[in-house]
Amino acid sequence: MRTLLPLATAFAVVAGMALADPLPSWEDGASKTAIVTFVENVTDPTSDSFVPEASRIATFDNDGTLWAEKPVYFQFLFAIDRLKEMAKADPSVLSSDVLKAAADGDMKTVAASGEKGLLEIIGVTHSGMSVDDFDADAKTWLATAEHPQKHMPITSMTYQPMLELLTYLRDEGFRTYIVSGGGMDFIRSFSDDAYNIPASQVVGSMGNYEYSVKDGTPQIDKTPGLFFNDDKTGKPLGIQARIGQRPILAVGNSDGDFEMLQWTTAGDGQRLGMIVHHTDADREWAYDRDSHVGKLDKALDAAPDEGWIVVDMKNDWKRIWSGK
Amino acid sequence: MRTLLPLATAFAVVAGMALADPLPSWEDGASKTAIVTFVENVTDPTSDSFVPEASRIATFDNDGTLWAEKPVYFQFLFAIDRLKEMAKADPSVLSSDVLKAAADGDMKTVAASGEKGLLEIIGVTHSGMSVDDFDADAKTWLATAEHPQKHMPITSMTYQPMLELLTYLRDEGFRTYIVSGGGMDFIRSFSDDAYNIPASQVVGSMGNYEYSVKDGTPQIDKTPGLFFNDDKTGKPLGIQARIGQRPILAVGNSDGDFEMLQWTTAGDGQRLGMIVHHTDADREWAYDRDSHVGKLDKALDAAPDEGWIVVDMKNDWKRIWSGK
Repeated sequence: MRTLLPLATAFAVVAGMALADPLPSWEDGASKTAIVTFVENVTDPTSDSFVPEASRIATFDNDGTLWAEKPVYFQFLFAIDRLKEMAKADPSVLSSDVLKAAADGDMKTVAASGEKGLLEIIGVTHSGMSVDDFDADAKTWLATAEHPQKHMPITSMTYQPMLELLTYLRDEGFRTYIVSGGGMDFIRSFSDDAYNIPASQVVGSMGNYEYSVKDGTPQIDKTPGLFFNDDKTGKPLGIQARIGQRPILAVGNSDGDFEMLQWTTAGDGQRLGMIVHHTDADREWAYDRDSHVGKLDKALDAAPDEGWIVVDMKNDWKRIWSGK
Repeated sequence: MRTLLPLATAFAVVAGMALADPLPSWEDGASKTAIVTFVENVTDPTSDSFVPEASRIATFDNDGTLWAEKPVYFQFLFAIDRLKEMAKADPSVLSSDVLKAAADGDMKTVAASGEKGLLEIIGVTHSGMSVDDFDADAKTWLATAEHPQKHMPITSMTYQPMLELLTYLRDEGFRTYIVSGGGMDFIRSFSDDAYNIPASQVVGSMGNYEYSVKDGTPQIDKTPGLFFNDDKTGKPLGIQARIGQRPILAVGNSDGDFEMLQWTTAGDGQRLGMIVHHTDADREWAYDRDSHVGKLDKALDAAPDEGWIVVDMKNDWKRIWSGK
C-alpha cells in the first residue's frame, strides 16, 4: 500500500497543475512548453538550474511585445492628437514642415522625415509641462483613444497571452520589467493598470527633466531633448543602469531588442530569450523584415543559433487581445 | 468586567511594543518620537494619514547619512588606492598635476583642485573596465579597507541607528532607496550587504556605459564622463527617473540633500524630512556649515520652517557604529 501514496500524490500534483494552467491563452506546443520548462527549472530548489528569487529578473519590450504597434506606435498617435490640440490653442507651435504635416494628418511626409521627424514631434508634444500634468494628459487620452483601423480602445490592445505570462512569472517569484524604446513617462501612465508593473519597473527612453520651485511649490518639468535612448544597445545599458542585474528572461519582437536578448541569454546558467513574431494578418498584423515599425530581421536570423524561442502569434496564441 | 478586556488588550499592545522596540539605538526623545509617530500614522488604516504600501517610499542619502564621510568620501579613498595601483602598473596614467598629487598622497593639492580635480580622479579610476570587474574590485577593496584615522574597517562605519531605521521601515511596508551624490556602481558593490538594499534601489551619480561584444561575449564597460550628477536638484530628478513616485520620507545630512527633502515634504499628506546633524566629536565627528564634505548650512537654516527633524547625533544616538 505504501507505494500508492507517492503515486496518488503525483496524480494530485499533475491534476492540480492541469487545473491551474497559468497560460490558458497559449496553445499547447513548443513555445508554451519552453516557457513552462524554463520556469519550472529555475524555480525548483533541487534543480541545477535553480535561480534564487532575487535574481529572477524578466524584461519585456512594450510596443509589439505587450501591446500592438501598427500602423504606428500608439505613443505617436497620442503625440499627433496632442499636437493638433496644441496647434488649435497656438498655431505658431507648428514651426516646421514636419510638424505642419503631422497636424494635417499627412503621414506620408511625416514618415519620409524618418526618426528625426518623429523625435521632433515627440519633442514638441512631450515637453513644456510638469511630469504630473503629462501623466494626467496621457491618462486622459488613453481613456478614450480608439485605434484608427481596428476601432478598438487602444488600452484593449494589450496581448492576453503576455498578460498571462507576466502574471505567471510574478507568481513564480520573478520581478517583471518593461524595457522599451518608447517613452518612459508615457508607458508609466498605463503600465500599472495594464500590466501590473509599477513606475519603478518601467525602463524606457527619457527626455530631460528640470527641477524648480514655482510660487513656493517644487515642480519637475519635462524639457526638450533626448536624455537616454533605450533602444538597441541602449536596452542592456538601461537594464544595467536601472536594474543592475542581468535578466534571466527577455522578450522582444524586433531588431531593437537584439542586444537585450543577446545580453540576457549570454549570462551563466539557464536563460530564456523569446521573440514575438507577428504572423497573424487576420486577428492582428503580419509583418517582420520590411516593416517600418517593429522591423524583425537580424534577430529573426539569429534566433536559431542563439536558442531564442520564436513565438508564432497565429499558431501559438488562442486569443490575441486582452480586451481590457 | 467587560471594560477590563480592552484595557488588558491595550496593556498587552503597549507591552509588546516596548519589548520589540524597533529603534533600540535611538534615545527616547523628540527624534525617535517623530519617526515612530510618523510610521504609525501612515501605516494605520484607520488614520487620515494612511498611505498604502505601494506609496511608502523612503529615500536615504548615503555619505554622512548611512555611513561616515570624514575625512573624505570613502569612495575617494578607494579611488586614490586604485590610482596608486594603476600608476604602479603604468606610470603614464598620472597625466596631470592633480593625478600625480593624488598618487603621492598630497591631499592639499588635491583639495585645492576642487570638484574638477575630484571628478578627474574619479574619471580615471572608474572607467576603462567592465561593470563586473569594477564591482569585483570595489568589493575586494572594501573587504580590507581601513579608515585612515579611526583605523576601523570601512564597512563597520555604517550607522547602527540608521540600519535599525531601514529595517523598521521595511518591516512596516516601506521600500527603502539610497539616493546619493556618490557613484551608483560603487554603492551597489556594498549596498546589499551593508543595508539590505538591492542594486535596483540604489540611485546615484553615474558615469557612461558602453555595450560591445568582445570575442563573442557581450560586455558592459564603464567609459569616461559623467552621465548623471545625482546631487542637489539631481536628487529629485533621479528619484523621478528611477522610482517615478515622490517619497513620503527622506533623510539626508547636507545641503546636497536640500532639494530631496524639499521635494519629499512638499507632497500631499503626511511627510517626514530628516537631517542627520554631526554633533559628536568624540564618537564620530562634529561638523556642519564649514565642512568641505557634507556641508550643512542652507538646509540647517531651513529645517525649522520646513518642519524637518534635525537628528542630534550626540544626544539622539546611543550607539554610532554598526561594527558590521
